[in-house]
Amino acid sequence: MQTRRPFAPDEYERRLEAVQREMSSRSMAALVVVDPASINYLCGYDAWSFYMPQCLVVPSAGLPHFFTRAMDVSGGAITADLPDDRVHGYPETLVHRPDVHPFTWMTERAVELGLMPRSGDAEVGVDLDAHFFSARGHACLAEGLAPTRVVDSHQLVSWVRVVKSFAEQDLMRAAGRIASRAMSSALETAAPGVRQCDVVAAIQRAQAEGAGDAGGDYPAIVPMLPTGKTAGTPHLTWSDRPLQFGEATTIELAGVHRRYHAPLARTISLGKPPRRLMHTAGAVDEGLHAALEAMVPGNAVRDVHEAFSSTIAHHGLYKESRIGYSIGIGYPPDWGERTISLRSEETAVLQAGMAFHMILGMWEDDWGYETSESLLVQPLGPERLTDVPQGLYIRD
Amino acid sequence: MQTRRPFAPDEYERRLEAVQREMSSRSMAALVVVDPASINYLCGYDAWSFYMPQCLVVPSAGLPHFFTRAMDVSGGAITADLPDDRVHGYPETLVHRPDVHPFTWMTERAVELGLMPRSGDAEVGVDLDAHFFSARGHACLAEGLAPTRVVDSHQLVSWVRVVKSFAEQDLMRAAGRIASRAMSSALETAAPGVRQCDVVAAIQRAQAEGAGDAGGDYPAIVPMLPTGKTAGTPHLTWSDRPLQFGEATTIELAGVHRRYHAPLARTISLGKPPRRLMHTAGAVDEGLHAALEAMVPGNAVRDVHEAFSSTIAHHGLYKESRIGYSIGIGYPPDWGERTISLRSEETAVLQAGMAFHMILGMWEDDWGYETSESLLVQPLGPERLTDVPQGLYIRD
Repeated sequence: MQTRRPFAPDEYERRLEAVQREMSSRSMAALVVVDPASINYLCGYDAWSFYMPQCLVVPSAGLPHFFTRAMDVSGGAITADLPDDRVHGYPETLVHRPDVHPFTWMTERAVELGLMPRSGDAEVGVDLDAHFFSARGHACLAEGLAPTRVVDSHQLVSWVRVVKSFAEQDLMRAAGRIASRAMSSALETAAPGVRQCDVVAAIQRAQAEGAGDAGGDYPAIVPMLPTGKTAGTPHLTWSDRPLQFGEATTIELAGVHRRYHAPLARTISLGKPPRRLMHTAGAVDEGLHAALEAMVPGNAVRDVHEAFSSTIAHHGLYKESRIGYSIGIGYPPDWGERTISLRSEETAVLQAGMAFHMILGMWEDDWGYETSESLLVQPLGPERLTDVPQGLYIRD
Repeated sequence: MQTRRPFAPDEYERRLEAVQREMSSRSMAALVVVDPASINYLCGYDAWSFYMPQCLVVPSAGLPHFFTRAMDVSGGAITADLPDDRVHGYPETLVHRPDVHPFTWMTERAVELGLMPRSGDAEVGVDLDAHFFSARGHACLAEGLAPTRVVDSHQLVSWVRVVKSFAEQDLMRAAGRIASRAMSSALETAAPGVRQCDVVAAIQRAQAEGAGDAGGDYPAIVPMLPTGKTAGTPHLTWSDRPLQFGEATTIELAGVHRRYHAPLARTISLGKPPRRLMHTAGAVDEGLHAALEAMVPGNAVRDVHEAFSSTIAHHGLYKESRIGYSIGIGYPPDWGERTISLRSEETAVLQAGMAFHMILGMWEDDWGYETSESLLVQPLGPERLTDVPQGLYIRD
């Protein structure tokens, strides 16, 4: 939550125009935005209220209205500059009830306000795969709008978010500085005998303190520290077990500023690493450089994946999962934008202003190597958002 | 993530039996568990993989199977002691695709395994209002199971979770010690000129370090620090603005151990508090004590709310929203169990072993007072999980 607005008002106007243009091309009478990151993108609203039903309703023309729990209405004025007449709070009696649901109330209200039509000819879009938009919420929306059809908007706003403005790029650079500082703290702290949770304590302290003038914001994902035999599993968080001599730990974290994320991963070996880890690290780092060289505007996104794959293939390695994804604004549980993936099936073309977390994780049965970079696509190639030296870290 | 299991195997057996008993009473052929906290409760699985579709399928008899993304299968063996033949990973090619969805794959696989029937006579339950279970996931489940009907399980597992075993109570006490330590750090750090994010840095460090032997785990909700004029809004997180002399800040955080939460809130005034804040704090603290006295097994939950309401009414105050909710295992975005609420409409009766976060927040236009306690219901009354002194904090 920030009380100073990070963007000039015309930035929000441009974003809304881009969304309404896309809605128009799909003949959508209205769009119900349920992803907290997309709500933030369109109006600046920022509070931990997304665990309750809420939505921003964007009409085909005119300004959007925000619908949330009554106690969160005041957060609209503070964080989003949303005037009172465009924020609507549903009553507390609708919270966690088996018989009634806030989406019935919100739908009814939005129809009354003329934001969404009830008509057999009309379609209203909503992201049917968004986090925090439940099956029950969907049923109440569809019932309340009938005969209007509710259609899948397939991350419409997220796709508009893909290319970052110069103002957004500046916030991502601040996030990158915070990520560098948090990763440096982690690498300095990790040593045999230090508990995993104490490494996390150093990371989380640095994540909140930020870097220089830029205070840190909370990450969409907590630090992940798969260690030793569990290092072959990507999404384990941490325990209070001490790090052991001879183990490798992969550390994945993000720096965050004004909700913009710069994730970063490194692997540290406590003691001399086994030959297989050295070999994989060398191959992956070579693949990383090949992938970075392919990251220029006009290239297909899949070229980046191909550059990485063909390079590590020379070393007898193969990676099934994607090697990265679009980043920007993030809320739990994911800092990815859920749009472009760096993989062979991707059809998108690289443009200046796109931002990616290129994450190269090789997870074997009981060990792993992970390294990553957060990147802005610039006219001449990728700009690194962080400055932590690359490669496998070794603490002898 | 913890590699030591916090419970004896028979504890998981008892939990599964209780869930299958309830399923049987509702004639449910199977239950699809999608809430990460309920998945953890039933099998111990713990990783940050819930941002992708995943579920635990509980058949009417026999052992549950876990379905997740292929790269997260190994986390099942590490955190949950789930044998390989009961964990099934969907391929990476199903991730974030507009044309195919993991829930189609998972449903198909569970039917093949005989965990769920396809029959016009059968009903399969799923929590239709759960976080992380999208409308699209629901559509794929329903289509894949037809003619079996998919019905709302209305937090079936969460209701089984309401009464805590002695082993769970011990973990909650550890969480309470961590919460006390984190709140003490916050109250020591908060001073005029200190940035909000630096108070959070102290909190997050303490949350991860834990208390004594018990390492800290990540909370389902980040620290919330509504401050000064924004203190009237409950769910604002923080900024990098320095705290000002003359302002009050409400601090809400949780201590977490092995995913069990003990939340805690306090309000601190930097400088002499205004009379209205003193008055509200006094009334609320009196209400808290009345509510605690009503919290004995056999009483109706609404009696606790009534004790609070009638006490603050003597001081001319009124609170519309609930004054607390059931707690236990938590994952983002919410540490509440979404079952029992401390409010006048609640029909549940208090039992020994229940756990609540009683949170008394009075949010006015541009100021607020908040205080809370995490409590275990014991045979003779409530046991406080934290030991931070109650009342308004004042730093002169």
